[in-house]
Amino acid sequence: MATHREFRFAKVPDGMPTEDCFELVETPMPKPGDGQVLVATHYLSIDPYFRNAMTGATRYGSLKPGMTMIGRGAGVVTESRHPDFAPGDAVQSEFGWRENVVLDGDGLRKLAPDLQPISLSLGIVGQSAATAFVGLYDLAGIKKGDTVVVSAAAGAVGSAVGQIAQIEDCKIVGIAGGPDKCRFVIDELGFDDCIDYKAGPIGPGLAKAAPEGVDIYFDNVGGAILEDVLEHCNDFARIPVCGQISQYNSDEWHGLRNFNLVLNKVLTIRGLRIGAHLPRRDEALEILLGWWREGRLRYRETVSEGFESAPRAFINMLSGGNVGKQVVKVV
Amino acid sequence: MATHREFRFAKVPDGMPTEDCFELVETPMPKPGDGQVLVATHYLSIDPYFRNAMTGATRYGSLKPGMTMIGRGAGVVTESRHPDFAPGDAVQSEFGWRENVVLDGDGLRKLAPDLQPISLSLGIVGQSAATAFVGLYDLAGIKKGDTVVVSAAAGAVGSAVGQIAQIEDCKIVGIAGGPDKCRFVIDELGFDDCIDYKAGPIGPGLAKAAPEGVDIYFDNVGGAILEDVLEHCNDFARIPVCGQISQYNSDEWHGLRNFNLVLNKVLTIRGLRIGAHLPRRDEALEILLGWWREGRLRYRETVSEGFESAPRAFINMLSGGNVGKQVVKVV
Repeated sequence: MATHREFRFAKVPDGMPTEDCFELVETPMPKPGDGQVLVATHYLSIDPYFRNAMTGATRYGSLKPGMTMIGRGAGVVTESRHPDFAPGDAVQSEFGWRENVVLDGDGLRKLAPDLQPISLSLGIVGQSAATAFVGLYDLAGIKKGDTVVVSAAAGAVGSAVGQIAQIEDCKIVGIAGGPDKCRFVIDELGFDDCIDYKAGPIGPGLAKAAPEGVDIYFDNVGGAILEDVLEHCNDFARIPVCGQISQYNSDEWHGLRNFNLVLNKVLTIRGLRIGAHLPRRDEALEILLGWWREGRLRYRETVSEGFESAPRAFINMLSGGNVGKQVVKVV
Repeated sequence: MATHREFRFAKVPDGMPTEDCFELVETPMPKPGDGQVLVATHYLSIDPYFRNAMTGATRYGSLKPGMTMIGRGAGVVTESRHPDFAPGDAVQSEFGWRENVVLDGDGLRKLAPDLQPISLSLGIVGQSAATAFVGLYDLAGIKKGDTVVVSAAAGAVGSAVGQIAQIEDCKIVGIAGGPDKCRFVIDELGFDDCIDYKAGPIGPGLAKAAPEGVDIYFDNVGGAILEDVLEHCNDFARIPVCGQISQYNSDEWHGLRNFNLVLNKVLTIRGLRIGAHLPRRDEALEILLGWWREGRLRYRETVSEGFESAPRAFINMLSGGNVGKQVVKVV
């Protein structure tokens, strides 16, 4: 009997996940039923939100030991019993960490043939960038001339926030860890400035980079960095909260000590779950594809080789080892 | 020379304000210039946000020692050199704590002749209720069937939140201090339930009153009560932050320890400053007047007698001594 492999979530991590939080299992090759397709996974998307799901922090997408790992993937249809898909079609969707996956076509998105490599459909022309798009347009109401700050600026979502802010003629300031990432953010991604949070408190750098104050803070990290940015926010600033990566591996949540600024600066703080904005996400993907074709999106990928490298790639990303979108190349 | 009286802000309070934070001064009677009116103050509006202004917490409306106290008032025009106003017109606007005030007509609102007593133009048909209106409709997107929770439920804004929620066919649960206030909130204001925060942690009461979870929390108090309500919020709950009265007199802001819920429950938290919504406030005032005429608004006022009682009325309100809108009757 033909088999293939998948990763199961094995145990809840205590702090930073370790490789034994995942179990690689050999399992029968799935077969598509009527109205279904079989897809060979070419790339897995590796994202920080998995960590939050591992502790069941949200009702949505929560992981329990024994479940197949969650996550989006890009691949190629190898067998189809669905009228809209044919073998050879490149597609992306929620795959889970599987070498092959059977899907019923719901939410399965066919990729433009010119979108190569197809891993881009996970990052700068995919869910990461669509998340940046919805956060900036729908949650934060970005407009020309805004000063936008984004944390984890060298990451997949942060990179995309920077590209959209530049397209909207905003000032864009990044926050990233270490001089190499900061140089990358400025020189390669075209940000106006980037502050290295590992070099000390970010307040002075922010005051220098954005003396006019911050209008939008796209938060990927939470914790003390969020507090520091709020101190530099203008009245009526908007803060989409997309991730809290500084918090996921700690025992105790940091909280928000200067919550008083919500009233005193009339802030809008909004959690962002892209799954709650599916029609807008799909619009965003079309617009991003157009921008990508026009050469307006700068990005980088960190590609980990081989399906079995997925746990290491995930741990590497949580440790800040990636630059740009972290993916796993399966085949 | 004719004189009148006003209250100046004398010193920044250390904790709860005391009467010596205010200075009553005799000063020349003001005279209206061309395009101006002279108004005799009949009522002063006494509001919690004054306390925040006393420590300069916001750039907007910040008080410095020596300045005349801020605040809205309702009164009657006694002399007019403005084409739109005549002696005898009842009006409301930002007066400051003055027995008489000269105004140039900007933002001066003529009252409907049937709106009696004119103190209602400060509370249930005034800025307090308009604040509730904008918070519920514009910030929180209230819709039929929502479960709405409001703190300081027996206060001016809280009372109004409860009336609007009932008009919109929502479940409405109050949080108030002490059994008398809770009874008032249920029996007189018509709330579905009311939790006495002085009787212990509010979690169990909230779980019982709103087992289906909270969709909108209209926050007037901040601190531990806010944290407790967030634990009972549904995904996608909306939280207008209108006041933080539990925090104003403390040395250190409490912060928000469970800020993680913003992401995990996809919350929207928005500071509310009514001055940023003036066109909507004015629409709200018209709608509120209509509801009041139809007898659909339940409310109470706490009236303090005499101009010189204003500091005591303010301190009383900060201590929770008022039921419904706190006003000072000047004449």
